[in-house]
Amino acid sequence: MQKPSLPKGTRDFGPIQMARRNFILDTIKDTFRLFGYNQIETPAMENLSTLTGKYGDEGDQLLFKILNSGDYLKKVSAEDLENGSAATLTKVSEKGLRYDLTVPFARFVVMNRNELTFPFKRFQIQPVWRADRPQKGRYREFYQCDADVVGTDSLVCEAEIILMIRRVFKHLGIEDYTIKVNNRKILTGISEVIGEAGKEGPLCVAIDKLDKIGWEKVQEELEQRGFQNDSVQKLNPLVQYNGGEAGKLEFLKSFLSSSEVGLEGVKELEETFEILSQMGEGLDHVELDMVLARGLSYYTGAIFEVKVNNVSIGSVSGGGRYDNLTGVFGLQGVSGVGFSFGVDRLYDVMEELSIFPKESVQGTQLLLTYFDHKGYGYALSLLSQLRANGIIAEIYPDQAKMKKQLDYASKNGVPFVGICGDQEIADKTIALKELETGNQESLNLEELTKKLG
Amino acid sequence: MQKPSLPKGTRDFGPIQMARRNFILDTIKDTFRLFGYNQIETPAMENLSTLTGKYGDEGDQLLFKILNSGDYLKKVSAEDLENGSAATLTKVSEKGLRYDLTVPFARFVVMNRNELTFPFKRFQIQPVWRADRPQKGRYREFYQCDADVVGTDSLVCEAEIILMIRRVFKHLGIEDYTIKVNNRKILTGISEVIGEAGKEGPLCVAIDKLDKIGWEKVQEELEQRGFQNDSVQKLNPLVQYNGGEAGKLEFLKSFLSSSEVGLEGVKELEETFEILSQMGEGLDHVELDMVLARGLSYYTGAIFEVKVNNVSIGSVSGGGRYDNLTGVFGLQGVSGVGFSFGVDRLYDVMEELSIFPKESVQGTQLLLTYFDHKGYGYALSLLSQLRANGIIAEIYPDQAKMKKQLDYASKNGVPFVGICGDQEIADKTIALKELETGNQESLNLEELTKKLG
Repeated sequence: MQKPSLPKGTRDFGPIQMARRNFILDTIKDTFRLFGYNQIETPAMENLSTLTGKYGDEGDQLLFKILNSGDYLKKVSAEDLENGSAATLTKVSEKGLRYDLTVPFARFVVMNRNELTFPFKRFQIQPVWRADRPQKGRYREFYQCDADVVGTDSLVCEAEIILMIRRVFKHLGIEDYTIKVNNRKILTGISEVIGEAGKEGPLCVAIDKLDKIGWEKVQEELEQRGFQNDSVQKLNPLVQYNGGEAGKLEFLKSFLSSSEVGLEGVKELEETFEILSQMGEGLDHVELDMVLARGLSYYTGAIFEVKVNNVSIGSVSGGGRYDNLTGVFGLQGVSGVGFSFGVDRLYDVMEELSIFPKESVQGTQLLLTYFDHKGYGYALSLLSQLRANGIIAEIYPDQAKMKKQLDYASKNGVPFVGICGDQEIADKTIALKELETGNQESLNLEELTKKLG
Repeated sequence: MQKPSLPKGTRDFGPIQMARRNFILDTIKDTFRLFGYNQIETPAMENLSTLTGKYGDEGDQLLFKILNSGDYLKKVSAEDLENGSAATLTKVSEKGLRYDLTVPFARFVVMNRNELTFPFKRFQIQPVWRADRPQKGRYREFYQCDADVVGTDSLVCEAEIILMIRRVFKHLGIEDYTIKVNNRKILTGISEVIGEAGKEGPLCVAIDKLDKIGWEKVQEELEQRGFQNDSVQKLNPLVQYNGGEAGKLEFLKSFLSSSEVGLEGVKELEETFEILSQMGEGLDHVELDMVLARGLSYYTGAIFEVKVNNVSIGSVSGGGRYDNLTGVFGLQGVSGVGFSFGVDRLYDVMEELSIFPKESVQGTQLLLTYFDHKGYGYALSLLSQLRANGIIAEIYPDQAKMKKQLDYASKNGVPFVGICGDQEIADKTIALKELETGNQESLNLEELTKKLG
């Protein structure tokens, strides 16, 4: 007899995990909806022609491919075998599992462009699959949770992303976190003013290590990457800036004074903060990180990254503005801005901080228990009325010893049991026992509804 | 430039479809939870060893298989090529997409049997995939929505299935439907008393056609299937029974008087109805269908099927009791009872009947609009307060003509727009316009919250 197992890097979610995941997801969904985003879903499978070439060579390797149905080898010849897997792929597989939610969203926008009203605000919460090496905290199936607005350049969207992130964290009870913001144009400007235009990529990779390896080592790395020594020296004021948050915009204006695009980036950030202020909102949790880059190649404007402080997991959310979401499918000019919550990471953070509210895993509120057939009949007669009053109630289905019934309640985290004995039947009441405290009181249906409703 | 398309038999769900699907799913989830069921999720991929051999030869054909990562052809030889796809499958694929939710659930129970408390009540709402020929109403990716209790024989579970189905239909607004119930033991009993023990399978397939082809043709078919003529004649009282619903149990007791198992089936149904009565519930919508079979091989006790009357789609839900969910994985004695809602079919039924409530697709309640930069600033100042009051509000993000802003609201089904003009700024009010009626009134923030909250 086979012993069943799970594929590597995949997980089951049992009742408690699911309840906690739903607590996170419901919080995020409510927030997206409050800000006028609508949910869409796309299929798990996409044509490989939609997916390949969008995530780089490594991404193509990590795509899960689906074997064609029926006689999948019929087009494969002995010669193909010799040419190897990559050359033969198109003959055995036409479909793959989605790798992220962005490419399917771009496809959706292109295919539905005539029906959609722009600006189009959508959110999407679905699993994605990557044939990555499984390791702690990295799975082959995991949920992404994206919100994007496409078809507008308005910086109101950037400001609202900050507000949505803050609302989600507030409702999840995560207090110590930082929303790092930057702008691609600032990065472009920095590389311009130091005389290394176009090299913001390697620049940011190196500077990102500042905290870990120090300025000496970062300079060495930059020179190894082909930066001129005097360019590197021009970074000194940036690296040594210690004027605090409030002065950063002024510092950048001066540092980037010779770069038109750099100043534009500063202006966009300034305007985003101004919109927040017009909305009566401050800059709590917001930190301007002048070298934040995050998958730089995608972004053309704002860049976001959210870090929870003092936990082992780092970034739990990120995003930014892009100029051309759908260009790869032949539709130009669809710009947008979006961000993504890492649900699995938020889960791990909340677990590490032990802040899942007890109510978030509350299932059944009340288990009706009984000693004998008469009590069972009485319990049945109450059950439908309790549920009609909105109380999540169960009856222990088998006639069993009271201890077994109480065990069931306690193992399932049911907070209350209602005991139906002869006295209760006579009085038309129920003996309500709170398992945690052992407190017991006699209540009629109306009182019970008031207490648990 | 490639023109993107969707894989055959798969679908995108846009905002309106998703809102309607969520209306159905939320109704079902609320009901499951009210009855004490907890949600679980299992991975999209299962090991092929878990999936194959569970759905018959046809099912094995219809499994979507996932190509092994990396050099998937490395174990395939020229000889394998000659032996064909089926013989080579294990060398190129180890995983498949789930085909239903029952086999993954059985695997879950086996793998977690030491942590679970029985009876275990779970529900599961996830997509499944079948490489079926796509056609109207049949998709390659579709959602299933299952609830099961395992680890108890109590008929309370059967009674509660009927109650859950009725609650879901009531909340969806579907009024004309029938919950057909039967019991496998009754079918076994019928084949016994007519002298064709063990042949309930072909018996039911043939009798199921009674309405379509009439008793003459059914008799012919039964004889073709090897039933003795005098066995077939013994079915006459069953086929010609016209005593109405109330008399069916008495009729069956008499018809099955010589079959112990048959009488047991009648007793189980009787007890299920008795439990409903003890719960203060009637038999509304319930019909005893003495030959209902539905995938007979799985079921050992109660059998359910729900049909919506007077629509082109037939069955939208079904289920039953089974003796041995997990036996195939080596864990004996886990009996249970469960049922499944066909979400796609419920969607189609509600669309055909035009009964989706308008509120079910309600997204944004209020769009703030403005004429100029001053109005835009004023609108921004209101926006966060409106949302803090729980009102789903948006601002049109770009400074655009009023007509464009109103168009956006109307195309997105936003019922109210709030106009922020000079007068409103001076009065600290908003001109609230209801798009459907054209009615307009001047309200302050408090009045607005009261009206839309």
